[in-house]
Amino acid sequence: MPAPAANASPDTYLAGRRSQVEQALRDALPGPDGAPALLRQAVEYSVMAGGKRIRPILALAACDAVHGDSRRILPLVVSLELIHTYSLIHDDLPAMDNDDLRRGRPTSHRVFGEDVAILTGDVLQALAFDVLATPRPGVDVPAELRLAAVAELATASGADGLVGGQLLDLRTELLPARTASDDAGRAAALATLEGIHSRKTGALIRAAVRIGGILGGADAPQLAALTRYGSSVGLAFQIADDLLDVHATPQEMGKATHKDDAQRKWAYPAVLGTDASHRIAEQWVHDALDAIAHFDDAADPLRALARYILDRRS
Amino acid sequence: MPAPAANASPDTYLAGRRSQVEQALRDALPGPDGAPALLRQAVEYSVMAGGKRIRPILALAACDAVHGDSRRILPLVVSLELIHTYSLIHDDLPAMDNDDLRRGRPTSHRVFGEDVAILTGDVLQALAFDVLATPRPGVDVPAELRLAAVAELATASGADGLVGGQLLDLRTELLPARTASDDAGRAAALATLEGIHSRKTGALIRAAVRIGGILGGADAPQLAALTRYGSSVGLAFQIADDLLDVHATPQEMGKATHKDDAQRKWAYPAVLGTDASHRIAEQWVHDALDAIAHFDDAADPLRALARYILDRRS
Repeated sequence: MPAPAANASPDTYLAGRRSQVEQALRDALPGPDGAPALLRQAVEYSVMAGGKRIRPILALAACDAVHGDSRRILPLVVSLELIHTYSLIHDDLPAMDNDDLRRGRPTSHRVFGEDVAILTGDVLQALAFDVLATPRPGVDVPAELRLAAVAELATASGADGLVGGQLLDLRTELLPARTASDDAGRAAALATLEGIHSRKTGALIRAAVRIGGILGGADAPQLAALTRYGSSVGLAFQIADDLLDVHATPQEMGKATHKDDAQRKWAYPAVLGTDASHRIAEQWVHDALDAIAHFDDAADPLRALARYILDRRS
Repeated sequence: MPAPAANASPDTYLAGRRSQVEQALRDALPGPDGAPALLRQAVEYSVMAGGKRIRPILALAACDAVHGDSRRILPLVVSLELIHTYSLIHDDLPAMDNDDLRRGRPTSHRVFGEDVAILTGDVLQALAFDVLATPRPGVDVPAELRLAAVAELATASGADGLVGGQLLDLRTELLPARTASDDAGRAAALATLEGIHSRKTGALIRAAVRIGGILGGADAPQLAALTRYGSSVGLAFQIADDLLDVHATPQEMGKATHKDDAQRKWAYPAVLGTDASHRIAEQWVHDALDAIAHFDDAADPLRALARYILDRRS
């Protein structure tokens, strides 16, 4: 399937990219040799459940933006979606957020049992690194770049990234400042909130953009610009997520909504109100666009993605 | 600390290597920047709890056996112990084996809660790949070799390795053949048992030996010999483990024993009896030694490790 044209409408571009990523994900799943059937079934259930595929699409767009060959890196960037899917399966577990619904279907532990759900998350993490590192026909990217991508993904998944953020989200005490009406209290709450979400959501989104750039052969100034774009878009993405949790229905989201309030979790609208949250998200999108302002029109999909992240409806 | 001499007694060699690995593990743990304190505490609790460190030590001995520089790869091979530790934490969870004791201390979920124990395992898996891939001062191993090590570790940790083996161990029905006295039934049970353990234990031990060889610059015939050594030693290791479960006390093992029988899990003594199990383990050790018979005396530590694996008391 050819890559969608850079001047396609955002919806057309996204749909084209999404179907490429779906196929590459399916190609990456464990085959029948050696892997137990139940594990393969549980892996497929969670990985092929739809989803926006925003992380691999960001990586492909970042690769395009630095004039890399995004077709060559497609089999590698599905690693980002595998890490994302593993984190959702583990976050949904009874010992964590205890969710019953994900992407409109019962969560992995509800279908396969808690033991299999834990193992399914574990195996998806291993598979993500396998996909980046194991030689495969048709994937011709230098070892140094693949190794750098492994390092990026591992760091983003680690104690100062995804897992650290989830732990903070579960275990950070609600500060009195959260509900304080004074500016200092609000600023402290906002700093805590950004500390949680820059790890839990931001690290993997930033890594997606950086990995796309690295595998596409970005030079140092390009990578610095992509890093700032990725950090800003990551924060905008989380705020948009929190706003959707307030406004969307479970049908639109395919999972329980209004949970942030019910469980008193850390979320932007609770700290700042919905209007200020939306304004801050717009500022982050503006900052993301500014970071890549000097890129040529090969970066147009990246620009469209920044806007889409704020305006999406699910 | 200098490497222990190859002609040291096995106990002296092991003790020297173990203390090198302990130090390298400590150096690999997340620092105070960015990682939540509770997560760092839980990581250190499980990683620095002792243990034989047999996987990194096998990797170092394999590197020595092909005349590689094992000092250079020490910071990399701790990745094997990080994967092993993560798998123990997850195996011990209430949804899996539900164990209270590990290495003589309460299991991670008993101390930190189930949520933190799951996240600690998750973060150790990410850290293992981080350690292999992230550039660090003093580690000067070519990117192609490091990437090959990532691929080995990821495959060994995956659906046809560690995680697949754990799933089979949890979910394989006890065949009537297991208790059958006829030869055909016994052979079928033995095949099932080897299918479970070649994945659950064997894959990571074989990967340890292969990773040591790869990072040490092994050529293809050397790597083939090390692979056969690793497969055989892996099977001997598991049989020895099952025999210890029958014979050792909880004090000696630092965990509950006689569990295989109590929970009717798949284990060699139950299928073959203890005498035949011991004979088969000896055959695997003999096969491991045969695989590296043409190596020079730089392989003596690898030879001593094969014998140690069978004769160990914990």
